[in-house]
Amino acid sequence: MTDYKITAIEGGICAAAGFKASGIHAGFRKNKQKRDLALILADDMCTAAGVYTTNKVFAAPVGVTRAHLANGKARAVICNSGNANTCNTDGYDKANATCDMLAKALNINADDIIVASTGVIGVPLPIEPIENGIPQLVAELAYGAEASDKAACAIMTTDVKKKEYAYELEIGGKTVHIGGICKGSGMIRPNMATMLCFITTDAAVSSEMLQKALSEVIKDTFNMVSVDGDTSTNDMVTVMASGKAGNAEITSEGADFDAFKAGLEAICRRLSIAIASDGEGATKLIQCNVHGFKDVEGARVLAKSVISSSLVKTAMFGADANWGRILCALGYAGIDIDTDKIDVKFISHAGEILVCENGRGVDFSEELAKTILLRRHITIDVDMKCGGASAIAYGCDLSYEYVRINGDYRS
Amino acid sequence: MTDYKITAIEGGICAAAGFKASGIHAGFRKNKQKRDLALILADDMCTAAGVYTTNKVFAAPVGVTRAHLANGKARAVICNSGNANTCNTDGYDKANATCDMLAKALNINADDIIVASTGVIGVPLPIEPIENGIPQLVAELAYGAEASDKAACAIMTTDVKKKEYAYELEIGGKTVHIGGICKGSGMIRPNMATMLCFITTDAAVSSEMLQKALSEVIKDTFNMVSVDGDTSTNDMVTVMASGKAGNAEITSEGADFDAFKAGLEAICRRLSIAIASDGEGATKLIQCNVHGFKDVEGARVLAKSVISSSLVKTAMFGADANWGRILCALGYAGIDIDTDKIDVKFISHAGEILVCENGRGVDFSEELAKTILLRRHITIDVDMKCGGASAIAYGCDLSYEYVRINGDYRS
Repeated sequence: MTDYKITAIEGGICAAAGFKASGIHAGFRKNKQKRDLALILADDMCTAAGVYTTNKVFAAPVGVTRAHLANGKARAVICNSGNANTCNTDGYDKANATCDMLAKALNINADDIIVASTGVIGVPLPIEPIENGIPQLVAELAYGAEASDKAACAIMTTDVKKKEYAYELEIGGKTVHIGGICKGSGMIRPNMATMLCFITTDAAVSSEMLQKALSEVIKDTFNMVSVDGDTSTNDMVTVMASGKAGNAEITSEGADFDAFKAGLEAICRRLSIAIASDGEGATKLIQCNVHGFKDVEGARVLAKSVISSSLVKTAMFGADANWGRILCALGYAGIDIDTDKIDVKFISHAGEILVCENGRGVDFSEELAKTILLRRHITIDVDMKCGGASAIAYGCDLSYEYVRINGDYRS
Repeated sequence: MTDYKITAIEGGICAAAGFKASGIHAGFRKNKQKRDLALILADDMCTAAGVYTTNKVFAAPVGVTRAHLANGKARAVICNSGNANTCNTDGYDKANATCDMLAKALNINADDIIVASTGVIGVPLPIEPIENGIPQLVAELAYGAEASDKAACAIMTTDVKKKEYAYELEIGGKTVHIGGICKGSGMIRPNMATMLCFITTDAAVSSEMLQKALSEVIKDTFNMVSVDGDTSTNDMVTVMASGKAGNAEITSEGADFDAFKAGLEAICRRLSIAIASDGEGATKLIQCNVHGFKDVEGARVLAKSVISSSLVKTAMFGADANWGRILCALGYAGIDIDTDKIDVKFISHAGEILVCENGRGVDFSEELAKTILLRRHITIDVDMKCGGASAIAYGCDLSYEYVRINGDYRS
C-alpha cells in the first residue's frame, strides 16, 4: 500500500476550487441564532456520486436525490435541519418543490440538485422557510472558509461540535483539494441520529470512478460508525467533483485513482471519527481495532459488534475493564471465530494493558486499566491471531446523557 | 388453534410431582443473606431437553450440560450465581468437578446432571463453595413451594424480582403440572444479562418430543426477549419431565403433544415477560405486537427490531410518542416490507391511540398519548396489513438506571 502525503487544510467544502456555500436561519428552528438551511453551489456542472441509507423507510429527499444523481451529475446541494421530511404524505411534493424553487433562483436544472433533510420524522415539512429563505441563501453564497462554516453550522441538529474538514494531496502532478461537512448523532424533538455528509473536490474524476471510490471508501469509514445502532431514514453521503484542479480526468483504476481514493478516505475517516466522538451524550471516542483476522469483511463485522454493544459502551463510560463483554460481543457477531486465540488490549494516551490472552483472562493491574480507560479516546485492540486482515470501527460510550437526550420528551 | 384451559398454580419447580429443590448461601456472594447455589433433584430419571446460547464464546457449564443432555436424560440441576465460569482455563475442569461431587453426594451419575453458572466472566470459579456447600444443599432438599422459592432466589444475580411460576392443564385426561424458575437481566460485577431457566413437569414425554416442544416454544418466548441486545455466553433453558402425572407418554405429534406444548409455552411466555419487565434498570415492560404480516419469521424479526432499538427504548422511558423511531426500526430490520401500509398504535391500560396510518403520521392527541405511555406496561401495536402472521416481542425501556448499573465500576 502506497503512502500518500495528505495534508489537513482550512476551508471545508470551499477548500476545493469552484464551490461556493451559504447557510442561513430560514425558520425551521425557533432559535433565530441557529442556521437551519444550507446551500452548496458549484460554478459549473460536476460529476457526482452518492450513497444512501439502507433503511426501507427512507426520507423523500433521499428518494429525490437518488433519482437526480442517477446521471452522475450535480450542481448544488440544499439541506435543511429541523425536519426530516420522512413519513409524510406530501414528502416528495415538498422535496421536489424545494428543488424547483432553487433551480429557478439559480437558473439551473432541478434534477442537478442534491436535496437533504434532517430532523423530526412524520411532521409535514413547512415549505415557507425554504420559499422565503432561498433569496437570502443565494444572495449570501460565497467562496472561502467562512461560507463553508455557515453551511456546516446550518446542517447541525443537536450536534455539539461543527464537523468540517479539508485535505490536499497531489494527483498526477496537480494539487487536489477535498473537503467535507457532515452532521451526525443529533436530533431535534428528539429524533434519530441522522448522518448527512456533503463532500466537494476539485479533482477531475468521471462519475463512474467517483461512485466507485465513494462506495469503496464508505465501507471502512462511515459504515464503521455506530452511535446507537439505529440506521436513520435520512442518511446520505454525496460528493461533487468540479475538475478545476486541472489533473488529467480519472476515468479508470490506476495510480491517480488510488491517490484520489486515499484523499477521499482521509476526509471520510476524519468526519467519521468526528461523528463518533460527538455521539449523543458521548463522553469518549471508542475505537475497536480488530486485526489478525482471516478476511476483512469478517473483521468489520466483529469490530462493529464490539462498538455497538450497550454493555461494552456502558463499561467504557464507567472506565471498567470488563473485557468479558468484549469477548461476548465478538462471540455473538455471527462470524466463525476461534475463541481460544483472542487477545484483547485497552490502549489510550495513558498506556496500554493486556487483559485477555488466548480467550482467557490474565492477571492485570485494575488501577492501570482504570487510568487508561479514564481518557477520552480509547482503543479496544483485538488480535484474532488467524490471518492478516483488519478493520477499525468507531463509536462512543453510552452515558446518562444519551438517555436524557433521547428520553426526556420535554427537552 | 385449540384453546387450552391452563391454570396458574403455586409451587414453581416443585409444582410437578417428583421434584425436590433447595437453595443455599454457599459463599460465591459476600452477602450471607443471599442464596447463591441451587439444586433441583428428580426422584427418578427424567426425559430432558435443553437449548443454549448461540454465542461462540460460551461458558464451560454450557458445554458440559450440552454433552450431558445428548442422551435426553437427566436427574438433577445445579446452578451457582456469582461467577459465570466463562473464559477460564480451568472452566471445564471445575464444571466437571461440580458434577462429580454432586453425583457422589446423590449417588447418581455425573452425566445425568445439568450444570449452570451465572455471574462475572473471566474470573476462575472458586470450587470451595461448591465442595463445602453440597452436603447442606443435599440435606435441605425438599418438596413444595418453599423449596422452589429457595432455588429461585439462589439463581438470581441483580434481578430485582424472583421469577417463579407454575401452571396446570389436562393432557389425555390427566392433570399435568409445569413449573419453572429463571433469572435474567442481572449481573454481578457488573456483567451481562445472562438468562437461565429450569423447567420441570410431571408430564410423560419422550426426550425427542420434549426437545421438539422446547425448541419450538422458545422461538416465540425466550428468543423474543431483548433487554439490551447482548446475547450472553451462559444462556440456557432446560426442561425435565418426570412422567409422574400418569398420562400416556407423548411420543409423537398429536392432540396430547399440542396440549403439552401449550402448557410449556404458557410457562415460557410468563417467564419471558418476567425477564423483560425486570430488565436492568427497567421502569416499563414494552411489548411489540407485529400482526398482519406475510410470514411469522419476518414478523418475529420486525417485532424484535422495534423492541431492541435504543431510540425506541429511551422514547418509552420518556413517555414520548415518537413513532418515527418505530418506523425506522421496522425499516432497518432487513425484512422486505411495504412501508406505505404500516399502522402503529400505542396501547396501555389507559387506552389506545393511533399515531401512524399507512406509514404516515396522523393527527393525534399528544396528551392522550402521554397518558397512555406513562403506564408501566406498554404495547406497541404494528399492523403490516399484508397477511395473517403475527409475533410478539418483549423488552423494556432504557433508563438512567441501566447506565448506572452497567457503567459504575464501583457498584
